[in-house]
Amino acid sequence: MSDRLSAREVKRHKWWGWGLDDVTFRYDNKPAFAPLAKNKIGVDLAAKDTPVEPDLADFDVPSSRMPADVRALLTGVVGEENLVDDDEYRVLHSFGRSLPDLFRVRAGDFERLVDAVIYPDSEEEVAAILRIVLEKDLVLIPYGGGSCISGSVTPDVTEQRPVLTMNLGRMREVLEIDDTAGLARVEAGVYGPDLEEQLNALGWTVGHFPDSFTYSTLGGWAATRSSGMQSDKYGDIEDIVRGLRMVHPDGIAHTKAIPGRDSGPSVHEMILGSEGRLGIITETTVQVHRLAPVRQVIAYMYPDWEHGIRGMHAIARSTDVSPTFTRLSDGPETEFSLAMVKEPSSTKGKVASKVQDGLFAYLRSKGWDTTNEMSISYVCFEGSKESVDQQKSIVKKIVKHAGGITLGAGPGAIYDQKKFDTPYLRDFMLNYQVFGDVCDTGATWSNLNAVHAKAFEAFHTAQKQQGLPGFMFSHMSHSYHAGACLYFTFAFPYSSHEEALEQYFTAKNAVQQSFVDLGSTVSHHHAVGTEHQPWITEDIGEVGVRMVKGLFADNDPGRNLNPGKVTTP
Amino acid sequence: MSDRLSAREVKRHKWWGWGLDDVTFRYDNKPAFAPLAKNKIGVDLAAKDTPVEPDLADFDVPSSRMPADVRALLTGVVGEENLVDDDEYRVLHSFGRSLPDLFRVRAGDFERLVDAVIYPDSEEEVAAILRIVLEKDLVLIPYGGGSCISGSVTPDVTEQRPVLTMNLGRMREVLEIDDTAGLARVEAGVYGPDLEEQLNALGWTVGHFPDSFTYSTLGGWAATRSSGMQSDKYGDIEDIVRGLRMVHPDGIAHTKAIPGRDSGPSVHEMILGSEGRLGIITETTVQVHRLAPVRQVIAYMYPDWEHGIRGMHAIARSTDVSPTFTRLSDGPETEFSLAMVKEPSSTKGKVASKVQDGLFAYLRSKGWDTTNEMSISYVCFEGSKESVDQQKSIVKKIVKHAGGITLGAGPGAIYDQKKFDTPYLRDFMLNYQVFGDVCDTGATWSNLNAVHAKAFEAFHTAQKQQGLPGFMFSHMSHSYHAGACLYFTFAFPYSSHEEALEQYFTAKNAVQQSFVDLGSTVSHHHAVGTEHQPWITEDIGEVGVRMVKGLFADNDPGRNLNPGKVTTP
Repeated sequence: MSDRLSAREVKRHKWWGWGLDDVTFRYDNKPAFAPLAKNKIGVDLAAKDTPVEPDLADFDVPSSRMPADVRALLTGVVGEENLVDDDEYRVLHSFGRSLPDLFRVRAGDFERLVDAVIYPDSEEEVAAILRIVLEKDLVLIPYGGGSCISGSVTPDVTEQRPVLTMNLGRMREVLEIDDTAGLARVEAGVYGPDLEEQLNALGWTVGHFPDSFTYSTLGGWAATRSSGMQSDKYGDIEDIVRGLRMVHPDGIAHTKAIPGRDSGPSVHEMILGSEGRLGIITETTVQVHRLAPVRQVIAYMYPDWEHGIRGMHAIARSTDVSPTFTRLSDGPETEFSLAMVKEPSSTKGKVASKVQDGLFAYLRSKGWDTTNEMSISYVCFEGSKESVDQQKSIVKKIVKHAGGITLGAGPGAIYDQKKFDTPYLRDFMLNYQVFGDVCDTGATWSNLNAVHAKAFEAFHTAQKQQGLPGFMFSHMSHSYHAGACLYFTFAFPYSSHEEALEQYFTAKNAVQQSFVDLGSTVSHHHAVGTEHQPWITEDIGEVGVRMVKGLFADNDPGRNLNPGKVTTP
Repeated sequence: MSDRLSAREVKRHKWWGWGLDDVTFRYDNKPAFAPLAKNKIGVDLAAKDTPVEPDLADFDVPSSRMPADVRALLTGVVGEENLVDDDEYRVLHSFGRSLPDLFRVRAGDFERLVDAVIYPDSEEEVAAILRIVLEKDLVLIPYGGGSCISGSVTPDVTEQRPVLTMNLGRMREVLEIDDTAGLARVEAGVYGPDLEEQLNALGWTVGHFPDSFTYSTLGGWAATRSSGMQSDKYGDIEDIVRGLRMVHPDGIAHTKAIPGRDSGPSVHEMILGSEGRLGIITETTVQVHRLAPVRQVIAYMYPDWEHGIRGMHAIARSTDVSPTFTRLSDGPETEFSLAMVKEPSSTKGKVASKVQDGLFAYLRSKGWDTTNEMSISYVCFEGSKESVDQQKSIVKKIVKHAGGITLGAGPGAIYDQKKFDTPYLRDFMLNYQVFGDVCDTGATWSNLNAVHAKAFEAFHTAQKQQGLPGFMFSHMSHSYHAGACLYFTFAFPYSSHEEALEQYFTAKNAVQQSFVDLGSTVSHHHAVGTEHQPWITEDIGEVGVRMVKGLFADNDPGRNLNPGKVTTP
């Protein structure tokens, strides 16, 4: 424990957007990107200069409301250097990275900020802080990587009590690996890349790679029921996290990392997804796997979405293959992906570009619509070389039978390298008064096409009624026995700062409502927070909501633990 | 719904023991069985005549305490013919099939029986009954197949309120199959064989086969977190049941059968394992799979348990095989299994017996101990012929590498046919004042051998202190990434009727305590009920118990729903 980071050494986002200060999206090396923006949403990127980054000094930042005596009690636990309450840190920790969060933080909409950020470095410190929170009637919000997009880390604007955010980022160690059982005991504050780096060095992987991977933490994944890209093989976080420790108002809740989980109603599954309302998750025991000797991502192309879904379903049903992930982009997402391809600079790249041109011409000659309908798919295989080769051969046949073709490993490798870059695009587009955001849902195989079609209809109807252009695309990922996740991305230019958020919610809510109208879930893996609460009753039913509210009220009668998240009150 | 069974047509156990009236264990055709009983626990089966079955007329059966006006309200819901309160039905429904239950029911220990048994045939009837239960302050106990071995269906002897048991056996229909999603909506009262028969006729299987399969129901599996023999492939019941409906005091709780299960704390996982304390499960949506074209159970033999576990672990770690089940018997269980083999009557059987003699002689020449140490293993493969052949070939190599040999499909097929007969043996042995019972636990791969050894030590130490002989054997089954289930069977003759149950609990509790002392679970899949409550705190922790108690108190403040099960109060 001697090499603990101090609070200010913990990795963090820029205060006004996603990720690192010096990383930004650029389109000058992507020749098809600006024409796509012009064509789909009528935005002329060239017409505007590169924007100036917001400066916190331009805004009024309200002072911390933390009473000095309480502050002293808190620094008594963690030391002066591990309680941070300067403006930048309080702003940073008061917002997740949802679209409304980004819009508000850039506009200096600081009506209610958290009053201090505390960085404990042990379960004992967390417990001591929780005692102060309860004694002094504070509000406590846990903070992992701050990547959440449903409002889970944001204080209620009407909150009158002092609000303390707990950043777990100093608690980031892999404590123990049980090689035989394939289990690792890990502190909850570790970021995704740090976790994988520590494990990879010993030949292990957790295999959990959500889109937010670079800016999300193990404890955050558990507290929000996260799902990673490779869930087909490694499972969702509820499969991966086998045991955990949580500091609860009455002591330490702990669940055993042993098969045959729990007796009676599952305490483990009450804690997963609780978003801080039952306590603070400090440690989890996760399944770890040996790094696969061979890993390949193969790209396939289908004439359209329906053919692609047929292929995806057949792969899921096959008892002879078990891919690490399966992903299918619809026509619009395929078009978007092609517009994100960089201008080839190397000879090799230029040759590849020519090959692609030839392929598309051939597909057009077969009657495919290579601009709007064609759907690209990626499937990842891991294992021994023999196993990977065999599975590739089986999937190739399945794809062909479903009407698709195999493109090969080239485009797959590019996808695999770029997969964590997308969040920077939202910040970039905001510079042009363009909203870009995502919605996800779980649907059964029998309902996937209907949900897909209805979401598009809902979005475009909403945009038409708003008199706004709009572009939406989607992909299928996270395949299960009974169904899969559908993941939608949409973008549109808002008409004015004053109307912006209403326009955003009109579009997003139309899509969300279309999910539950067809019996699908309000979200597959983006948690509830506050943004998805309007559909919680449609999601888990009136009695379900009543059970969850009762659980919160029983365990946190004073509403000190992240109140208002998942359910009201 | 026109072909509903009436109450008395619903399948049921004999009132005093397991299963059908006319089925009993016999040993006259198993030449090695009586010598084993003599050798291991000093019991001379030949010294006693075939026992007479107990006759209910020999016992005092207390009258029903259900008030006439309440009874009239209840029959008003289901009709006179679907409320049964005769002596035999009340006795039958007051006991599960745990060893203490069997001992007490045979002895006419009827201090507190249930007062009536009601058989609803719809969710609406269940809801109407629950309203009467709450209005009239009754106790309501749900009853599936009555196979539970931890006291979950037995009323508290101190209960002063009228006790109503609800038998779901009339609600047994497969309501709908979604072929594309592989999901079936099924009423909760269906027995295992009935469920599989209805599905098999359409080419489907659930693949859930607990030892209790013939006398347990879908709703019972869900309410007790059941696990079936084939869980390696098909999952435990929490994996299989994707959605459910439960009649709760405040309405119908329902969870969606959609991937990306639940938002926030899982309502679904609160209901699974709740043993009737939150309401009555009336319907579940389960994953169904196409019947495999080829199914083979192959037997293997290892020189001892440790070599066997090495093989089992290697199979679990292999990314190239996915067996339907994997099972390893230790030396004593292998010895017991061989003693259960029938005397060969056919020429083929006699040849097989000679082959076995030759094989054992060969193994002894290699230095194996073929009487006490040798450990038999069964692995089941399902899939296409190519896939099964390939997996068999890989497992054969793994077994060889671990020091074992492949016996082939013959013994495997015999195991597969006999697997549901064992429960009858307990009733038979009780005729000789011999207790035979089981304990199970989940342990990590790194802890399996230690838990195995410690359980044996605990049992034999307890028996030594009691001055009683004892025989124990075990197997490993239900393999997972991180570990597996250990399943122990023990038998011993008790010394007198008065001391019997104390002797039983001394032995059983020693084994249970040994599990939790090494950090394993109190039970892998036998639920909590009342029998496992002494270890619930060691299992889920003080805070966990507090959370579960709070959940029950919040949802059932009047303690009308199967009070005292899982936790007190």
